[in-house]
Amino acid sequence: MCELLGMVTSHPADVVFSFTGLALRGGQTGPHADGWGLSLYDGKFARTFLEQDPAFSSPLARFLRENPIPTQLAVAHVRRMTRGGASIQNTHPFVRVMHRRHLVFAHNGTLPKIKERKLRLESTLGDTDSEYAFCVMLEALRESYGARWPDDPNELGKTLFELANDLGQDGIFNFLFADGEHLFAFCSDSLYSIVRRAPLGHATLVDAEVRVHFGELLAAAHNPCMAAVATAPLTRDEQWVKATPGTLWVLQHGDLVRTFDPSPHFRPGESKAPPWQPG
Amino acid sequence: MCELLGMVTSHPADVVFSFTGLALRGGQTGPHADGWGLSLYDGKFARTFLEQDPAFSSPLARFLRENPIPTQLAVAHVRRMTRGGASIQNTHPFVRVMHRRHLVFAHNGTLPKIKERKLRLESTLGDTDSEYAFCVMLEALRESYGARWPDDPNELGKTLFELANDLGQDGIFNFLFADGEHLFAFCSDSLYSIVRRAPLGHATLVDAEVRVHFGELLAAAHNPCMAAVATAPLTRDEQWVKATPGTLWVLQHGDLVRTFDPSPHFRPGESKAPPWQPG
Repeated sequence: MCELLGMVTSHPADVVFSFTGLALRGGQTGPHADGWGLSLYDGKFARTFLEQDPAFSSPLARFLRENPIPTQLAVAHVRRMTRGGASIQNTHPFVRVMHRRHLVFAHNGTLPKIKERKLRLESTLGDTDSEYAFCVMLEALRESYGARWPDDPNELGKTLFELANDLGQDGIFNFLFADGEHLFAFCSDSLYSIVRRAPLGHATLVDAEVRVHFGELLAAAHNPCMAAVATAPLTRDEQWVKATPGTLWVLQHGDLVRTFDPSPHFRPGESKAPPWQPG
Repeated sequence: MCELLGMVTSHPADVVFSFTGLALRGGQTGPHADGWGLSLYDGKFARTFLEQDPAFSSPLARFLRENPIPTQLAVAHVRRMTRGGASIQNTHPFVRVMHRRHLVFAHNGTLPKIKERKLRLESTLGDTDSEYAFCVMLEALRESYGARWPDDPNELGKTLFELANDLGQDGIFNFLFADGEHLFAFCSDSLYSIVRRAPLGHATLVDAEVRVHFGELLAAAHNPCMAAVATAPLTRDEQWVKATPGTLWVLQHGDLVRTFDPSPHFRPGESKAPPWQPG
């Protein structure tokens, strides 16, 4: 099992607060000790930092905490190996270039049958089912849209929702998919979200006695807001919303902008992961 | 004009020495002040670090000097803006995934007519002629090889040499192209190389009074060797070989393994860059 974190903000902000929580889970307070990755969008370009070692002891993770890079859209992942060895090739998020943007993907769960599907144009670097599933999705997007890119998040959301229902029936397929403007988050069995609006208050991390005032993070902004999705709530003193399995959330500009409710046909694969326990 | 540096080594080594020289050119001793990038292969995966700010004052460049990542194949670039604005999207090296590997490309020069060629599958993130040329090359490789990848560097070298002669006739096209195993380096008007064999001696950077003993860098290795290519010699006390315009070098495992001599039909575009002056 791996932990996902996605964030969108109304104004450029640093994501040190939430990444600190996720980084602590990378070996120190959680069992997620096989690498971590972080993609921070700057326009449609995703600066991506990956390491196959635990985040809590990583000099690069510490560097990023000390030298935060402002962003409005971020995807982070901390990995515990299930399929595929512990190597940089197998570390999420996975990134590809399509339609003048980076597409970023991170997955939590396993899809044991995904490699039965053939790839034509896309190619994996590592040997995870997760990266393979991303490639299957990219080929489906090429097929759906050709040279056109669906700028309407409802259109792209619908395609991703259908793909999630298709691929997710053979396993556990919690994922984050970002296109530089929107964050699409699918819940197979465990995903939480929170939207924070002005006036932004304090929050305390689940994993460490750290408090941060969100107003300071977005101090210069008018009407700031931010939204986050994660495998499990990252803070103690806020109300995170648990997704019903089969839900796809679309997030943008610090807010949750669209929810695709579970399809009546959604049949999530059997989860072998233990149920999440609050910290 | 931009500065290129490529390195291959017989054993994993850190490239701090040579990158220090290149980083100093990023704003302090040279006019190359619009960003820098570094790709370090780990197997066929290229860890890539990019910044649109000068390298000499960059916290990330300093972090990489202080926390070197061992590699056998590296591509670095320091940029002075010619075409395209100073942004992360326009920073070399450019990276794409193909045939289960990262392909990495960095360019020095300008190709004013390159965008007259149409792209079908590949897509640029930024607006440089360099990234566009890389995409043209990738489409040509897809067309040449389809689902097969040319593991023989002579075969891939020949294709890249022909592409270099084709695209390079309309401008200045010094470039480095890496596939995770080999480094292909084309000289349009300025490229130097050096091969260092055991026993590895000392060398002094052109740009700073720093001396490094190469034997220490590869101390544990049996019969170590390393080869580098660069726009201009990086060290004072070594004999760098200047390429004849139109040459393609193939480097692998610390050595120069193949030279494609200039085609009699090679017509490099007119250079507007001042001739290189030794430090």
